[in-house]
Amino acid sequence: MKKASVISVGNELLDGQTVDTNAAFLGNEMMCLGIPVAGRFTVGDDVDQIVRALHLACEDTDVILVTGGLGPTADDLTRQAVAVFLGVGLHLEEELLDQIKVFFTHRGVRMPDINAVQAYLPEGTEAIPNEVGTAPGILGRRDGKLIAAMPGVPSEMKQMFGRSVVPVLREACVGQAVVVHRLRCFGAGESAIAEMIGSIMERDRNPLVNCTVEYGIVTLHVIAMAGDPDEAGRLAEVDVAFLRNKLGTLIFGTGEQTLAHVVGGQLASMGKTIAVAESCTGGLVAKMLTDVAGSSQYFTCGWIVYSNEAKIHELAVPADWLDTYGAVSEQVAIAMARGARRMARTDYAVGITGIAGPSGGTFEKPVGLVFIGVDSEEGTATERFQFSRDRQFIRQRAAQTALNMVRLRLGL
Amino acid sequence: MKKASVISVGNELLDGQTVDTNAAFLGNEMMCLGIPVAGRFTVGDDVDQIVRALHLACEDTDVILVTGGLGPTADDLTRQAVAVFLGVGLHLEEELLDQIKVFFTHRGVRMPDINAVQAYLPEGTEAIPNEVGTAPGILGRRDGKLIAAMPGVPSEMKQMFGRSVVPVLREACVGQAVVVHRLRCFGAGESAIAEMIGSIMERDRNPLVNCTVEYGIVTLHVIAMAGDPDEAGRLAEVDVAFLRNKLGTLIFGTGEQTLAHVVGGQLASMGKTIAVAESCTGGLVAKMLTDVAGSSQYFTCGWIVYSNEAKIHELAVPADWLDTYGAVSEQVAIAMARGARRMARTDYAVGITGIAGPSGGTFEKPVGLVFIGVDSEEGTATERFQFSRDRQFIRQRAAQTALNMVRLRLGL
Repeated sequence: MKKASVISVGNELLDGQTVDTNAAFLGNEMMCLGIPVAGRFTVGDDVDQIVRALHLACEDTDVILVTGGLGPTADDLTRQAVAVFLGVGLHLEEELLDQIKVFFTHRGVRMPDINAVQAYLPEGTEAIPNEVGTAPGILGRRDGKLIAAMPGVPSEMKQMFGRSVVPVLREACVGQAVVVHRLRCFGAGESAIAEMIGSIMERDRNPLVNCTVEYGIVTLHVIAMAGDPDEAGRLAEVDVAFLRNKLGTLIFGTGEQTLAHVVGGQLASMGKTIAVAESCTGGLVAKMLTDVAGSSQYFTCGWIVYSNEAKIHELAVPADWLDTYGAVSEQVAIAMARGARRMARTDYAVGITGIAGPSGGTFEKPVGLVFIGVDSEEGTATERFQFSRDRQFIRQRAAQTALNMVRLRLGL
Repeated sequence: MKKASVISVGNELLDGQTVDTNAAFLGNEMMCLGIPVAGRFTVGDDVDQIVRALHLACEDTDVILVTGGLGPTADDLTRQAVAVFLGVGLHLEEELLDQIKVFFTHRGVRMPDINAVQAYLPEGTEAIPNEVGTAPGILGRRDGKLIAAMPGVPSEMKQMFGRSVVPVLREACVGQAVVVHRLRCFGAGESAIAEMIGSIMERDRNPLVNCTVEYGIVTLHVIAMAGDPDEAGRLAEVDVAFLRNKLGTLIFGTGEQTLAHVVGGQLASMGKTIAVAESCTGGLVAKMLTDVAGSSQYFTCGWIVYSNEAKIHELAVPADWLDTYGAVSEQVAIAMARGARRMARTDYAVGITGIAGPSGGTFEKPVGLVFIGVDSEEGTATERFQFSRDRQFIRQRAAQTALNMVRLRLGL
């Protein structure tokens, strides 16, 4: 199997001014192409350092991806370094210069002289088109190894990688097809899910089942390789079916879907609407729902009722319930959900009340205690949760959990 | 000046399952200690790869920080690699074993046998205590170079680095004092700020003025080095005064403060309160305000009035204004702010209406158009903004801008 190296160029990566998200993106993409990244070098804006990394990368990998150092200023040195590494000179590509000029003309400005340097390429290499910025990439070859240098700006790099580098890599891996499915899970942790699915996550298996976690969402990547796409597809399907069977409703979506996407999509297709009443999550559930483009179709109104007065005044939570049960209680979560549904005249509503901390906890109602109520025509349900860790985590997890309760109520 | 290398160990870093935030953290911390990171190697869970990186790192740097690979499982190989690199064997440290056992006892469980491996150290090295996990770090020396291996879990790494590694590094840099000030700016971009402050950001200057950007917040790090802390402090103060003079109210805070911290702190100290009425930001301003612990002191209530009906019904926005001026208008932003302040009976209120996109824009009211109104005893002010890029960016920037308007209204 072919292997890749990534060389990330930029002083800002070494100083910690920038987190190298490009490297993680390329790591996952290359894994999905069947050319896993075997090593990564991060170097400063320095020709010698870049050349040294290119030599080291060529020692044991077949594809070398470089990001950064292609800008127009004096500290952008990847162009020179690739030329030194290949033992060639730089020469001006008139056609490239015209393209860069056109890029500026379209924005109504003259090309600054400084940008002309981006039209120079190491001899014997090709330009990789950049449709969203001025810096073209560089595609070179040495000793049967492929070198692709791309800009460091993530949006430019991603676009260039997907459109122009992936096809070249696929060609280099002819006879090897890779099919990737992603299953998105919520409601159990990484290790619990790993236990449920057993040895399918072993490292040298095909399909490879990889797992990433972000904000409580566990994503399982099923990466199948075979001689042709049909066979790879069949292999992947077997594992996806196995995982769906084992994990059931823990799986809420596929690809890049969020809980808000899934909930929103279902509400839209049913022609139903939702409202939220938030206390401890302070607007986060509404924020998540409205992150989705087109959410105005099903989301009309939300309340952040932080104080008792707001709960009473805005959502008609009975004042004596607040006295009797406390603001953080099953009863108040229900009253908030019912109040929101009635006031906003929606089909569904969620009420969330809890203690996000760090202070405000008691022995009976500790920090992290959250009640979530869901109200709809079918009735009202409420659940009690005890989250741990810090304020941000508790709020994040409570908001995700609320969306998950709605998802399950919608029969998803 | 001494220089450092960072070696990040873990297959999950190469696969893109994990973004290497440790490396950025250490990059910034080492810069602030006056031992900048000159290169970084990311390697898989493989003894040969780790040893190779240790050799490469030792070639040209004085301090080598390793993260990851100290766990108890078969793929955690940093311990062995450090031993191979130093040319020594591993031996069991009874005292360490007892500490690990105590760690588990305190959690009411017996130590799994597998964890005993964490009590082994390369001969001639010291254990670095881990107060939040089971994996002790390893502190070794070779040819006058310092090697510190730490766990990959960010919380454990950060704690171990700050408490145990920093003092050793300071000792290694005796006679060199570093003082760091951070100024947080909002309201102008990185390049505009760079232009305003001129040559102070040059790379080889002392103090070094570094710049990081996140969600529109530009942070200037003033890093002063001198023979003693007083002198370093004086150097830093000069630059801080210069920057404050140049940037004026663009600077909203210091250290790690957010706009919500600064606004909240001022409201709390004045005994004043705030409410929000959000349309296009969908709860994000409320979320930011309530991210701050203790925000219930000044934040009582918020509305997400996504639909016209909600704007009319909840906040008494005049229906004919919606018809005449449209939901995205100066007039409606003002009416929302006024409605929120009256309904919530707060001292301040913000109203935000705009088009977050990607659809819904017109020639006259394009995607990214946002009106923000601030209402208080002093009167009502409204501003029109045209943000660009995508939905997430527009929402984020609109929310930050709303908080910034409140900050300026509060005289900060």
